[in-house]
Amino acid sequence: MALQLVTIPDKASPFRGGDFTDVTANPVLIEVTRGADVESRHRGAFVVVDASGKIVRSAGDPRMAIYPRSAAKPLQALPLIETGAADRFGLTDTELALACASHKGEPAHVEAVKAWLARIGLTHAALECGIQPPRTSQALEKAILERTPLTAAYHNCSGKHAGFLTACVACGEAPSGYIDPDHPAQKRVTQALGEMTGCDLSAVPLARDGCGIPTYCMPLQNLALGMARLADASALPRPRAQAAKRLLDAMASEPFFVNGTGGFTTEVILAARSVRVKGGAEGVYAAALPELGLGMALKIDDGAMRAAECAAAHVLLGLGCFTADEEQRLKPFLNPVIKTDAGRDAGAIRPTAPLAASSAV
Amino acid sequence: MALQLVTIPDKASPFRGGDFTDVTANPVLIEVTRGADVESRHRGAFVVVDASGKIVRSAGDPRMAIYPRSAAKPLQALPLIETGAADRFGLTDTELALACASHKGEPAHVEAVKAWLARIGLTHAALECGIQPPRTSQALEKAILERTPLTAAYHNCSGKHAGFLTACVACGEAPSGYIDPDHPAQKRVTQALGEMTGCDLSAVPLARDGCGIPTYCMPLQNLALGMARLADASALPRPRAQAAKRLLDAMASEPFFVNGTGGFTTEVILAARSVRVKGGAEGVYAAALPELGLGMALKIDDGAMRAAECAAAHVLLGLGCFTADEEQRLKPFLNPVIKTDAGRDAGAIRPTAPLAASSAV
Repeated sequence: MALQLVTIPDKASPFRGGDFTDVTANPVLIEVTRGADVESRHRGAFVVVDASGKIVRSAGDPRMAIYPRSAAKPLQALPLIETGAADRFGLTDTELALACASHKGEPAHVEAVKAWLARIGLTHAALECGIQPPRTSQALEKAILERTPLTAAYHNCSGKHAGFLTACVACGEAPSGYIDPDHPAQKRVTQALGEMTGCDLSAVPLARDGCGIPTYCMPLQNLALGMARLADASALPRPRAQAAKRLLDAMASEPFFVNGTGGFTTEVILAARSVRVKGGAEGVYAAALPELGLGMALKIDDGAMRAAECAAAHVLLGLGCFTADEEQRLKPFLNPVIKTDAGRDAGAIRPTAPLAASSAV
Repeated sequence: MALQLVTIPDKASPFRGGDFTDVTANPVLIEVTRGADVESRHRGAFVVVDASGKIVRSAGDPRMAIYPRSAAKPLQALPLIETGAADRFGLTDTELALACASHKGEPAHVEAVKAWLARIGLTHAALECGIQPPRTSQALEKAILERTPLTAAYHNCSGKHAGFLTACVACGEAPSGYIDPDHPAQKRVTQALGEMTGCDLSAVPLARDGCGIPTYCMPLQNLALGMARLADASALPRPRAQAAKRLLDAMASEPFFVNGTGGFTTEVILAARSVRVKGGAEGVYAAALPELGLGMALKIDDGAMRAAECAAAHVLLGLGCFTADEEQRLKPFLNPVIKTDAGRDAGAIRPTAPLAASSAV
């Protein structure tokens, strides 16, 4: 499905939905080889825009309709600060990073979320995100060996949900049902997300994210616009500009709490602190690039995260986000190698022409 | 990449490789919805042929170049019987099913492989497939709680490898290096695979499968041809026809040992014993349909197994392989539902026009 052209609220009315077409003709961005030949292919689109919505670079259809999923978390965390809730409860960078996180349910993540909830007078029982087992083999093994009862605090979105709950408590709202579109918590989130992405989210298709909160269908370039405005907040009202800076600073300062051990976001931010990148389910990545004043959004048509990560790494490389040393450090993401289960080389994941061209610019 | 037309050895020379093109234009076969809209798309091709290679049904490019991966296991197991090794060691249906298996490393799988290896005077140390952890949460939890040292017997291909080793022992060959293309074990397998699929495998690209053995690049319809000849062995030499029947019977009689608890192959065979279906990595499925005398092969361009399973189920449905009751039982594979982590409906995986049309024929 492709949507109408993005509109920038500063200059025109917001995006209000439009024609959906059933098939995109996005190019192959990522190839997966086995031996000397290509075995699998991932199509997709990416777009890089500045804070006015001007497209700086793209491949595929920038108007492609996507659900931003967890890639929008830094935008969804804005009300946590703007309501004054973060200050009232003295949230640190760790908690703000968790509010933007897809963490792995590692012990440090779970403990931090539990301590945060205790500080606002709640427990994991208030979280409505559902339960996920830990997402590293070490954390999973520990939980099994210690027969730890899994709770919603283990869910990759538990920090985002703790943020929603914190705003509810600060605003004196009953937290129950905070994941529903009509609850004040989601109304705040929807308003901030709509303003930042230049979308009237009351007019676009609405669905449920994996953690139960609303996710809104929007053109890919509108997600990029939201990230560009986080990165270059010069045209935003002062409280929002401050909130944006505080969230991006927290992500840079505590990348482990954004994506856990070995995660793409963790490793990219550890290697290159000027990059704020965030993934979402079904092959979505978004990035805010404060030094360049740009935002990026990317979607792999088939939803594969292996392709989304490699493509995101190459778009960032093409934008000059990495020094030679950082590029070397990020080689496992830029040039992933596929091994046999006994450790011999079997293939690779690699960018194809539209991405390589992007890198070469 | 697309390859030249298949050639059927009975009527012409075998396929010997050909032109590779970089992009396929396969249709979207599977859509993944979120709410009312499509969020992700999987392109691919399928083809159904009879034992003469005549195409009965297809979508996308039947000449698409694929690596059959584990979908070829029933073909790779033929020498285990044809060498006399299966009879010499009195292999039962359980072991023959394991020789065709991608199992889940559940306790019963591991125990059966260990007992089999002991019978031929070997242990898991002879397996060269590498190690994988168990692939059901229950089996993984048990292995962690009991601190069981994982061995190559847990690998999903350990039964196939035990079959290779059994043939080596029966033929008086040193088993070491049995995964290499030049070892007599793989020469036998390559010959049988080439004859059944109508390919000169010495002339096509060769790569390493995940378990280390050779995997050969071939047109999709040649994999389908190999399966059709398993299903309708009337034109095969008598020993091969007998071996084909014995393997298909073993798969029907012991589906748990082919794919483990909840596996697509296990559930489809349990529901419809006339179907022999087998998956392979990177979105491949193949099926031998003895009652129809047909073979099927399917590849999802991007390698996604969620799409390959749903597509395979709909191709089989379209061929009339399921009664109404069986169709009902296989609903979780025909119409998978996507839930939030708290259990609410969020989306679905569904076939698109080319598959639905196939089902409607």
